[in-house]
Amino acid sequence: MSKVGVIMGSTSDLPVMQEAIDILRGFDLEVEVDIVSAHRTPEKLFDYGKNAHERGINVIIAGAGGAAHLPGMVASLSPLPVIGVPVKSRNSIDGWDSVLSILQMPGGVPVATVALDGAKNAGILAAQIIGASDKCVRDKILVYKEGLKEKVIKGAEEVRKK
Amino acid sequence: MSKVGVIMGSTSDLPVMQEAIDILRGFDLEVEVDIVSAHRTPEKLFDYGKNAHERGINVIIAGAGGAAHLPGMVASLSPLPVIGVPVKSRNSIDGWDSVLSILQMPGGVPVATVALDGAKNAGILAAQIIGASDKCVRDKILVYKEGLKEKVIKGAEEVRKK
Amino acid sequence: MSKVGVIMGSTSDLPVMQEAIDILRGFDLEVEVDIVSAHRTPEKLFDYGKNAHERGINVIIAGAGGAAHLPGMVASLSPLPVIGVPVKSRNSIDGWDSVLSILQMPGGVPVATVALDGAKNAGILAAQIIGASDKCVRDKILVYKEGLKEKVIKGAEEVRKK
Amino acid sequence: MSKVGVIMGSTSDLPVMQEAIDILRGFDLEVEVDIVSAHRTPEKLFDYGKNAHERGINVIIAGAGGAAHLPGMVASLSPLPVIGVPVKSRNSIDGWDSVLSILQMPGGVPVATVALDGAKNAGILAAQIIGASDKCVRDKILVYKEGLKEKVIKGAEEVRKK
Amino acid sequence: MSKVGVIMGSTSDLPVMQEAIDILRGFDLEVEVDIVSAHRTPEKLFDYGKNAHERGINVIIAGAGGAAHLPGMVASLSPLPVIGVPVKSRNSIDGWDSVLSILQMPGGVPVATVALDGAKNAGILAAQIIGASDKCVRDKILVYKEGLKEKVIKGAEEVRKK
Amino acid sequence: MSKVGVIMGSTSDLPVMQEAIDILRGFDLEVEVDIVSAHRTPEKLFDYGKNAHERGINVIIAGAGGAAHLPGMVASLSPLPVIGVPVKSRNSIDGWDSVLSILQMPGGVPVATVALDGAKNAGILAAQIIGASDKCVRDKILVYKEGLKEKVIKGAEEVRKK
Amino acid sequence: MSKVGVIMGSTSDLPVMQEAIDILRGFDLEVEVDIVSAHRTPEKLFDYGKNAHERGINVIIAGAGGAAHLPGMVASLSPLPVIGVPVKSRNSIDGWDSVLSILQMPGGVPVATVALDGAKNAGILAAQIIGASDKCVRDKILVYKEGLKEKVIKGAEEVRKK
Amino acid sequence: MSKVGVIMGSTSDLPVMQEAIDILRGFDLEVEVDIVSAHRTPEKLFDYGKNAHERGINVIIAGAGGAAHLPGMVASLSPLPVIGVPVKSRNSIDGWDSVLSILQMPGGVPVATVALDGAKNAGILAAQIIGASDKCVRDKILVYKEGLKEKVIKGAEEVRKK
Repeated sequence: MSKVGVIMGSTSDLPVMQEAIDILRGFDLEVEVDIVSAHRTPEKLFDYGKNAHERGINVIIAGAGGAAHLPGMVASLSPLPVIGVPVKSRNSIDGWDSVLSILQMPGGVPVATVALDGAKNAGILAAQIIGASDKCVRDKILVYKEGLKEKVIKGAEEVRKK
Repeated sequence: MSKVGVIMGSTSDLPVMQEAIDILRGFDLEVEVDIVSAHRTPEKLFDYGKNAHERGINVIIAGAGGAAHLPGMVASLSPLPVIGVPVKSRNSIDGWDSVLSILQMPGGVPVATVALDGAKNAGILAAQIIGASDKCVRDKILVYKEGLKEKVIKGAEEVRKK
Repeated sequence: MSKVGVIMGSTSDLPVMQEAIDILRGFDLEVEVDIVSAHRTPEKLFDYGKNAHERGINVIIAGAGGAAHLPGMVASLSPLPVIGVPVKSRNSIDGWDSVLSILQMPGGVPVATVALDGAKNAGILAAQIIGASDKCVRDKILVYKEGLKEKVIKGAEEVRKK
Repeated sequence: MSKVGVIMGSTSDLPVMQEAIDILRGFDLEVEVDIVSAHRTPEKLFDYGKNAHERGINVIIAGAGGAAHLPGMVASLSPLPVIGVPVKSRNSIDGWDSVLSILQMPGGVPVATVALDGAKNAGILAAQIIGASDKCVRDKILVYKEGLKEKVIKGAEEVRKK
Repeated sequence: MSKVGVIMGSTSDLPVMQEAIDILRGFDLEVEVDIVSAHRTPEKLFDYGKNAHERGINVIIAGAGGAAHLPGMVASLSPLPVIGVPVKSRNSIDGWDSVLSILQMPGGVPVATVALDGAKNAGILAAQIIGASDKCVRDKILVYKEGLKEKVIKGAEEVRKK
Repeated sequence: MSKVGVIMGSTSDLPVMQEAIDILRGFDLEVEVDIVSAHRTPEKLFDYGKNAHERGINVIIAGAGGAAHLPGMVASLSPLPVIGVPVKSRNSIDGWDSVLSILQMPGGVPVATVALDGAKNAGILAAQIIGASDKCVRDKILVYKEGLKEKVIKGAEEVRKK
Repeated sequence: MSKVGVIMGSTSDLPVMQEAIDILRGFDLEVEVDIVSAHRTPEKLFDYGKNAHERGINVIIAGAGGAAHLPGMVASLSPLPVIGVPVKSRNSIDGWDSVLSILQMPGGVPVATVALDGAKNAGILAAQIIGASDKCVRDKILVYKEGLKEKVIKGAEEVRKK
Repeated sequence: MSKVGVIMGSTSDLPVMQEAIDILRGFDLEVEVDIVSAHRTPEKLFDYGKNAHERGINVIIAGAGGAAHLPGMVASLSPLPVIGVPVKSRNSIDGWDSVLSILQMPGGVPVATVALDGAKNAGILAAQIIGASDKCVRDKILVYKEGLKEKVIKGAEEVRKK
């Protein structure tokens, strides 16, 4: 069974990152959550990046704010696809710092970046990555997309009634 | 065998997007290239997004510039993971337009965004996504990473000699 | 009689977009309101864009936030003039994402963009577009402009009295 | 017959604005070109804005760079729809100055803003505005859109052949 | 005696602009306050700009927000030095719109721009302009600067005591 | 007779600042040019700022690039009006650094900021400041403005001929 | 014993700058706090910059907001390493003004810039600078870093327990 | 004797970083140059950061472009002061990516950031850091500053002669 590793730089990122965890569990995927700080626990970062794929993890989601180095450093250490979530932290310059620190990776080491505070989309993207080879998960994505559609259709009906 | 669909909004994006095609072929992955314009061929966009997964495509790479809607619209239509490449087009406002149009997707519809003109990384990320379940491709990623390392080590030697 | 279609990506955009609806009704124009999400209801988007002009709509106002693709996609599908309203959504990067996603359309497919959260101006612009050929509506615009002037003149008097 | 007034702040804007003139003539629309500088010929600006609709003009296209006041000032004076083209002038701060000076109009006085240096789209938008009530022009827009599509389809064929 | 004209685009700018009025009165300069909207009262703008110097005004301070055209248009119409105050209005894109609309004037028509919401400095600058030829006012500036210094010196003493 | 002091941080700023010198001489104003670097000659900066008004200078124009401290520091030391010219230097971040370093002065110490590389406008503004009390200079400004107008009118004629 | 001078432009910067003072005292370093305003007390700035190294200060930390000239001017006057803290002041344009005014110093006069409102890091950096030659202080840095690590490890344990 | 370690992410950064090496040698400081890539040689990064201070290095200068993680990661691993040089690389978004990735470090792990491509200032800052405790180096800084001054004074003389 596929497993997604969700890591973040600080417990203060958890309220944002929880959305990734929740949506992954909604897709019945196994999730492993941890705090790994690129700047404060570099040894743990190193172990995590080097060994995640050996431990059965298939996709990594990494969230961080400010000069966010966690997603890029894990991507440097691991052969797995890494999804980066720019978190708008306290003292951030409107989120631009985390967005650019995660997005603008040099040639050779990609990070799959999602929107600012877009942990929910990171979770869906992880499911889609697993669904790239697992038809059962892909079908769940199709069902999920139907649900999005229905919610909009209902909202439209209510607006038209007014 | 896994297949990657590489699409772009215009033939003028090909010089940038060729890097994705080349690296994917270097990983011995099957690549299907097409021009699909969200704004000029919306019907083709629709067909592409709706059917890519039925035609055996596993991952989609979509590149576009300016108000870049191609990656997000394909992501809206397809259950597959979609990698977005912001292309710095003529008349772009320093690339910010394509970066933000691709990155800032709403909750429910992620696009895995890479750096501005980062088509090479889009190709590597597609291989990593396939490698999430295919050990053979993942091993190629590990070999590729060793190659990156060796090149830097050699460069370092030359710098120290001076 | 002329009709304006007002659409938005989500019910959460309604508080902003209501200003467009109100001002159009103040000009006695027929307004048709709907929720159409480029990313969650792409089929509805397709139908809307393809058929709006057949259904008697003359101008379309489309509001959306973040990576706002609704105005541009409708403009791709419809021969009608499309007015885009960048909405400052939650998690927006200060509104820059919706502004650039709507404004920076490629050659061939314009969107008439108004200010961030500028739904009121979108409504006035739609009336001006109808007034380009309908003298009665244009006269209402002239009257409206007189009203703006008088309000400023009154404000000036009060300030001078202090 | 409908007529479009194309004005710009300086003769140095003509190379950019020529694209609007050419595309309007391609749609067989009457075009009247003039130089009107908000900052150097304010009286002419005043006359132009006050009288354009009396002289049979239906839509105004105004292009300007830097602190671009021409589109907004004409919009303040005229009841006609005004399309603003932000021109990237010498000494511009990457085009942001003209984009924001034209886009961010206050409530009551809209300018239909197109992309940076997007004069071609300004011309198409003017035709769409006329086509909002003139079926003959709207049909030309539909034909034009078909042409865009065919060009992409051809480009796609060539790319696939390689 | 020298006179400063303080104008603003809307009564909503008054709380910001009051700081200019207060500091000018503190320098015993005559102040004339008015509301002049470039976009809603263009005729009044015209009269104001054309005649201010004939009516005995020596310096003009103009404050406006968003696509702020008031300072530049007055500068276009008047031979007097015009000080522009970018006001951070509701719906502003973080103040960038008013800053760039006022600052980036084309060659030939300067506006003396001060900081965002910097009305106080606009008042001081107007006094300095008058003081350029009026020694009595210049001496008041020197006294004012001494006051600034003393306040900092006192603050420093308190901080050191802690 | 009035005198304008034109200073700049480096001889590399002279090509930009020459425009201020030329236009001031065109208005028959006395100009004194010097290089004063806030960061490399702080003692000279100090002397200049403290004594300029004693030496008969009426207005100071100061140009600098990058973290441009020259205009603000002179303004801190002198009671005279100081006009700041943001120069787009090598290694500048698109000019934003010099613009914000000059514009965003704290309450109490204004700098009259002009556009990026806007030395010509700095010269005109200095003349307008002198013209605030000197009718002869003000009349020259009025003549200069007529010249601007005529040039545009001629350009307009040529465009219409085509 | 080593001494750090902590200065700031205004008492309103103290709540931010206190973090630098606290962390330095935590490292048992001598701290001297003062208010020095580049714009309001230029003479004090001059004395401070010229004499700090004579008075036994080894490192200077300078915090300021807006067009922040304090760190750069002290760096111009002193041979000591100067750490600059961009403070997000009232009326700041999102902090960009102080960041760029401090960071973008011209060649010859560096300022060691830390993050927006990053006074804590300024204190740590000052300790590291002293620790560059003082093994005792460097060891305290190593202990501090261990403390950071332990806090993250504990946080991780709590997250995993949930 | 003090030693400065100069590292960079890629040999392509050498033309920029050479300025740091040259100025340090001009101050007769020992320099050790190496290529260390955070993303391609993470193990080397680890060794470098963990051991630099054991090997007799006193200050580290690290230059990198794009999502620049090298300075911050070395700072995370080493107790030494780390100076970060944002390099404007190919595909950079105008340098903002490297500036923010280096500057906006989280609390606990500072990087002393200098201007974009400011390697020369990084070298001077390293010398100042050594000079914080080494009077001989500090005196060289004072001499260097005199040299800067003389160059400006000479430039000023030439400008005045014209």
